[in-house]
Amino acid sequence: MTHLGLYALQHRGQESAGIAVSDGEDVVCHKGMGHVNEVFNADVLDKLHGEIAIGHTRYSTAGETDLRNAQPLTVSCQKGQVALAHNGNLVNAAVIRRELESRGDIFQTTSDTEVLLHFFARSKQTGVPESLADALDRVTGAYSLVALFRDSVYGIRDPRGFRPLVLGQLGDSWVLASETCAFDLINALYVREVEPGEMVILDRRGITSLRYSPPARTAQCVFEHVYFSRPDSLVFGRSVQESREQLGRRLAREHPVEADCVVGVPDSGVPAALGFADESGIPLKLGLIRNHYVGRTFIEPTQANRDLGVKLKLNPVRSLIAGKRVVLVDDSIIRGTTSRQIVRLVREAGAREVHVRISCPPTISPCFYGIDTPTRRELIAATHTIEEIRQYIEADTLGYLSLEGLREAAGDCDDRYCLACYTSKYPTAVQEPLLALRNRG
Amino acid sequence: MTHLGLYALQHRGQESAGIAVSDGEDVVCHKGMGHVNEVFNADVLDKLHGEIAIGHTRYSTAGETDLRNAQPLTVSCQKGQVALAHNGNLVNAAVIRRELESRGDIFQTTSDTEVLLHFFARSKQTGVPESLADALDRVTGAYSLVALFRDSVYGIRDPRGFRPLVLGQLGDSWVLASETCAFDLINALYVREVEPGEMVILDRRGITSLRYSPPARTAQCVFEHVYFSRPDSLVFGRSVQESREQLGRRLAREHPVEADCVVGVPDSGVPAALGFADESGIPLKLGLIRNHYVGRTFIEPTQANRDLGVKLKLNPVRSLIAGKRVVLVDDSIIRGTTSRQIVRLVREAGAREVHVRISCPPTISPCFYGIDTPTRRELIAATHTIEEIRQYIEADTLGYLSLEGLREAAGDCDDRYCLACYTSKYPTAVQEPLLALRNRG
Amino acid sequence: MTHLGLYALQHRGQESAGIAVSDGEDVVCHKGMGHVNEVFNADVLDKLHGEIAIGHTRYSTAGETDLRNAQPLTVSCQKGQVALAHNGNLVNAAVIRRELESRGDIFQTTSDTEVLLHFFARSKQTGVPESLADALDRVTGAYSLVALFRDSVYGIRDPRGFRPLVLGQLGDSWVLASETCAFDLINALYVREVEPGEMVILDRRGITSLRYSPPARTAQCVFEHVYFSRPDSLVFGRSVQESREQLGRRLAREHPVEADCVVGVPDSGVPAALGFADESGIPLKLGLIRNHYVGRTFIEPTQANRDLGVKLKLNPVRSLIAGKRVVLVDDSIIRGTTSRQIVRLVREAGAREVHVRISCPPTISPCFYGIDTPTRRELIAATHTIEEIRQYIEADTLGYLSLEGLREAAGDCDDRYCLACYTSKYPTAVQEPLLALRNRG
Amino acid sequence: MTHLGLYALQHRGQESAGIAVSDGEDVVCHKGMGHVNEVFNADVLDKLHGEIAIGHTRYSTAGETDLRNAQPLTVSCQKGQVALAHNGNLVNAAVIRRELESRGDIFQTTSDTEVLLHFFARSKQTGVPESLADALDRVTGAYSLVALFRDSVYGIRDPRGFRPLVLGQLGDSWVLASETCAFDLINALYVREVEPGEMVILDRRGITSLRYSPPARTAQCVFEHVYFSRPDSLVFGRSVQESREQLGRRLAREHPVEADCVVGVPDSGVPAALGFADESGIPLKLGLIRNHYVGRTFIEPTQANRDLGVKLKLNPVRSLIAGKRVVLVDDSIIRGTTSRQIVRLVREAGAREVHVRISCPPTISPCFYGIDTPTRRELIAATHTIEEIRQYIEADTLGYLSLEGLREAAGDCDDRYCLACYTSKYPTAVQEPLLALRNRG
Repeated sequence: MTHLGLYALQHRGQESAGIAVSDGEDVVCHKGMGHVNEVFNADVLDKLHGEIAIGHTRYSTAGETDLRNAQPLTVSCQKGQVALAHNGNLVNAAVIRRELESRGDIFQTTSDTEVLLHFFARSKQTGVPESLADALDRVTGAYSLVALFRDSVYGIRDPRGFRPLVLGQLGDSWVLASETCAFDLINALYVREVEPGEMVILDRRGITSLRYSPPARTAQCVFEHVYFSRPDSLVFGRSVQESREQLGRRLAREHPVEADCVVGVPDSGVPAALGFADESGIPLKLGLIRNHYVGRTFIEPTQANRDLGVKLKLNPVRSLIAGKRVVLVDDSIIRGTTSRQIVRLVREAGAREVHVRISCPPTISPCFYGIDTPTRRELIAATHTIEEIRQYIEADTLGYLSLEGLREAAGDCDDRYCLACYTSKYPTAVQEPLLALRNRG
Repeated sequence: MTHLGLYALQHRGQESAGIAVSDGEDVVCHKGMGHVNEVFNADVLDKLHGEIAIGHTRYSTAGETDLRNAQPLTVSCQKGQVALAHNGNLVNAAVIRRELESRGDIFQTTSDTEVLLHFFARSKQTGVPESLADALDRVTGAYSLVALFRDSVYGIRDPRGFRPLVLGQLGDSWVLASETCAFDLINALYVREVEPGEMVILDRRGITSLRYSPPARTAQCVFEHVYFSRPDSLVFGRSVQESREQLGRRLAREHPVEADCVVGVPDSGVPAALGFADESGIPLKLGLIRNHYVGRTFIEPTQANRDLGVKLKLNPVRSLIAGKRVVLVDDSIIRGTTSRQIVRLVREAGAREVHVRISCPPTISPCFYGIDTPTRRELIAATHTIEEIRQYIEADTLGYLSLEGLREAAGDCDDRYCLACYTSKYPTAVQEPLLALRNRG
Repeated sequence: MTHLGLYALQHRGQESAGIAVSDGEDVVCHKGMGHVNEVFNADVLDKLHGEIAIGHTRYSTAGETDLRNAQPLTVSCQKGQVALAHNGNLVNAAVIRRELESRGDIFQTTSDTEVLLHFFARSKQTGVPESLADALDRVTGAYSLVALFRDSVYGIRDPRGFRPLVLGQLGDSWVLASETCAFDLINALYVREVEPGEMVILDRRGITSLRYSPPARTAQCVFEHVYFSRPDSLVFGRSVQESREQLGRRLAREHPVEADCVVGVPDSGVPAALGFADESGIPLKLGLIRNHYVGRTFIEPTQANRDLGVKLKLNPVRSLIAGKRVVLVDDSIIRGTTSRQIVRLVREAGAREVHVRISCPPTISPCFYGIDTPTRRELIAATHTIEEIRQYIEADTLGYLSLEGLREAAGDCDDRYCLACYTSKYPTAVQEPLLALRNRG
Repeated sequence: MTHLGLYALQHRGQESAGIAVSDGEDVVCHKGMGHVNEVFNADVLDKLHGEIAIGHTRYSTAGETDLRNAQPLTVSCQKGQVALAHNGNLVNAAVIRRELESRGDIFQTTSDTEVLLHFFARSKQTGVPESLADALDRVTGAYSLVALFRDSVYGIRDPRGFRPLVLGQLGDSWVLASETCAFDLINALYVREVEPGEMVILDRRGITSLRYSPPARTAQCVFEHVYFSRPDSLVFGRSVQESREQLGRRLAREHPVEADCVVGVPDSGVPAALGFADESGIPLKLGLIRNHYVGRTFIEPTQANRDLGVKLKLNPVRSLIAGKRVVLVDDSIIRGTTSRQIVRLVREAGAREVHVRISCPPTISPCFYGIDTPTRRELIAATHTIEEIRQYIEADTLGYLSLEGLREAAGDCDDRYCLACYTSKYPTAVQEPLLALRNRG
């Protein structure tokens, strides 16, 4: 079941995968580099006995690409065995780690998650929930956590709720996942989100909910709706697909253009393109085809893969594009290099005009909460005007969605989203060492 | 280059892959079970030296799933070394093979392709083109072939032109491929199709074209346009994507329905859905999401995978579907089981009505020319009325495109398509042993 | 059982391994590059159902290092399915192959074994034994064969009996193997050798013996006793270990020397060293230690491995050797490079004198019957006097066993051995093309 | 170089292998389950840049069979990055670990080695040598350690010197290894042992020697000479091969017998057999042949392998044994099951009498210092008389070497060996929890 869930969440991380199970006595963990279907096979799954389990797919936002950093992290301490899987990124991990090291702690990974385990083990509290709360009190940043103990699973979401975490029910059992699409696959019913600042405990007695932190102003990652989540998921209680269509509709109203067809950049740009087409009355064309036998552009960790990949992944349909004025709808411009390659592809296929429309505002700041954006220096919109970007990507016109438009399309009536990548207003302090670390990256 | 081309053609076969190269002296071949990225790595490619090469991705329409049957087949004979890759299926291979065996030939594979090599080797002709023509004269059926010799590559298409084969140019070099999308990836220019009954010879002197067979009435596989080819390819000189949109438009005219949204079954049903939506005025919704981390349904060889896979691959977007009257557009109903599962998925996601529209006529006959359709007994439309099928798949209404509609949408002005799977009128004799063989399958 | 047998015979070939089984209906074969434990695992063995089977481990004496050449070769022909495994080497394969090719046959391997299958398939005889006899009549050279048909296993030994083939019994079943050590492992009883020119047929009715060829003068490979076979085997009806001890004894008598200790080059030189020590009264010391985590020197196919390996494999025991006059006993000097490296090793470990004794005569001619000796040009003894060899290998003295001594020690009372590698007197015509082929090698 | 060294030391551990290197900046580690040639390949080695390195081959004496426990263990702490490889076993690790856990430390492995890293990181000392000394002061037991820091390698041997650790020189560089055979392979010169209680520091300045612990009575593992070390090594300053021959000689004097031949159980029993033969005048015969394509009996961790393996590994030479009175010389009887199987093998090969001689005293106590002996309950000599053992293994007579004989043969003039497995007199306190742990095992 956990294994199937990881298949459904493969898009969230393709570098490594792992599952930890407990049979009530021992916590056993298997993890490896690669996709879920490479890490697990029948033999491996056979050895993972037990009634409770957690799993993780990872892509590296913090810590190097390395088997050591694959999750769940599994340790033994005075509070027993614990396996921990972490979605998000702590912003004070570097400082904390230095503190812990100066007190004599040793670190076997380079991931930010390991500090949590140190705090947990060292907590003076005796109960597991109290010790976890104690540990969480020491860290700042984004964390949706699942933790496996001998006889219980914990689900925890940070007080600002950066990353999603949902609770579902399957018969008498409770399940947790990053996105509801994992529930759909295993026929579990979506119940609700784990609330920001909430800790849920799943064990033989059922579910217990605790608030380990007072309410804070939420800061849910809007980029989950723009790009990261699967469109068939409910994220932060809202359909991702619907958000994307709305983004496209708003975009059509904000940046209308005379054109012959609307083409979305697959896969994530297509829903916004559909909204744009519907709103503008310009016909949608499936003018770019994606070769799905190659992985996802954004997510793979090395620079080399990023550049090499565009042609392998996208191919224009010349007959639909040739001689046409094309509106190209995409979800973001990061460095600008990929966008330029796509514009060129479309132009080489005969497009008369290429009008680029982006379904969010310019990305001007890196994310410190778990999305692998590059440093500010590399973000084209951090240092260039929109006109300069337009020239760089060789588009005839370029339009970004406004911040207001984004919030409205994502249903943000009450200012609950983190918009830092578009505004540079980080919802938490972002400590210098971490910024430095990122800038070195 | 050949390796990249195979990536672009991965959708045509996922069971095995192979490349043969010649350095002017020796023909060397590497092949293995699995996807292109599993079969080849830097080490393997380093060992494949040479200036000319052919490649192949295979899924088993004839012969067992077995490394022996992976292509290119490579043999040595009195006419030198030859590597042969075959797209399509010979219809008289079983009879011929028995004949050849009775004359004392031995067979090391169970594929139909091997008989061609026997005829070639045994030909009394001395030249390679003449010997190939001699061999081809003995076989009937579908074959688009590429053959690698020490210092030349041959491209051959059967007289009826069942399967595609295109010729392109890259700088001073000539290239051959099943679909133009392979040219796009390597920046080669599409020149023309290899004609039915034509043999092109690519060598140091350039290109030579021969007619090894008198013109026959062509019988190009319409299913390439309906489902099999990549939408960004030109196939038989026509854009696949455009055909699919037209299929959807015709379908909307032939089987109109009152509904709230049109949903295509990804990936192949989406273009027809777009055409349907556009023609009918009912809005298109991306209401089914495909998980691309799992392979393609139709193509994998065992029954087990087929049934297990639907939920892993498709997930409905509840928010778009709930309470709606949905038109579900797909490209075919084979056994009916997958269609039923999809209808159920959509209904469980809250659809009020589900109207299934199929962008081709009922599939009533197996293909003997290279598409892996099941036997007639397993084809639901061979033995059931449309109303029975509708009940079986649990749809509110069901509409198939007419044969006339299909031909028109695929641009068939001059009756050049093979429509046997919809009409049972096979363009060649289909010898009993083969039929028997298939029916046993 | 076959799988276990291959473990026992791993020393005969480490390049590839394969097993073919028949369940009475179909012959299924699995083979791969590498050692038996790499090629087979539980999954693979599970798929090899049936009651009769043959297996093979191969090292390349004829044909390239390539999966295509792995055995058993499995084909289908008018006489049904047949899998064939061949120990030995045909001397007229190249000529025959050219003949067969000129008649139109195709070859999918580069091994000499494939010609046999062509002759078999093409035989005008109708019965299997007759067709086999027909085929064997066409070839000359060394062949111990096992052939698997739907419901029978054949064991065949060439009329001169170059290579061993033994018959055993296990309960009601009959078994065949190259050496008796395979019988020991599966608790089968050794019955007798398959006779030169004999064909045994094992099927449901038991065993049938046929003579497919009139008796010829036998030419059993003496090198099986000197080096190739496992010492715990009976080969040609005689204990290998005993032969080796006798070789050492004779050697001590023929080439006595004053020394402090006798050291055998492991593994194959140790039994002769023991005989030498016993006969001479000089104490045996285990002064060279072999690291068994690396493979066998002689048998691996590339030049690079040969040179790199000596230090990885052999290490002197300084305390036993330092200051001593050492008799170093080995089974052959091929190129001289390895011997020189060993002499140096021993001298660097402090030996005062190094007296090399070889338990056979100088190797002056290549083998065409299945032992992978290099070409004549590379054989140091073919072109150098013994004194020159002594200088080259840097030994104080060097003594080879006499031909007479070899024959006597190997129990050759009636001139039944092939001694061609020591005498250049080949028991068969060795056709020019093959010699040429070898010399090109 | 480190990689080659691991090949030479493969016999010391076959479960996992690892290498850590430092390029002066970063410590990078690669490790995996399996033999050295499975864990490392050209690609992996290419990525391990640097000028200093340590390596390890592991078999599990403490901690489970698990990749987590593979060594070197690599951590980062306030004292920088450190990689640690440990030969031996701490006897107070379980107690200490509980203490550390109660203070809040977390453990990511189940190996005893991890506690050392915690103590090191937590030490109040600032220098690395002082911190290491501090850490070592807290642990008891057997440890020969190599530790890699950014710019130095440390070699440390526990005050009793249980396990070997030798220092060598290669050009201007210093090298450390468990046995001298690793030096031989890389052409390094043996300099001396690292002394018990000594810490050597190898860095750019050369070598520095420190005494971190006052001299204790040494307790060098005699079993290294009896069985564990490679015979071509110097261990504790003495040739292993020579020790084994002496063991055989003493054995012949202590337990003479009338017999026809002496047969050693390969590989480790052969040197003692040679000594026995030489001393007794009974001729040595290589009457048992080992198949080296299967691994080493004693060292593989699961029970299943142990029982299955004997026939795969050993085969008698019937012609040497049949009708003979055989003296079978082996290095130990652990559970008795293997010995019984070997006696039966020899008898089935026709031996008239089988006299077993063991080149050490009865093994009555488990080892807590790094040899993987089973629990006392499983040790046949712990609970049975010699006569009972003789009956169990079905020998005609059975003789063990005396303790006095062992010490003398191993050159123990000054009582410097640990003989606990034969005497139950452990040189250190062996804390209850550990004993309990072992007894649970």
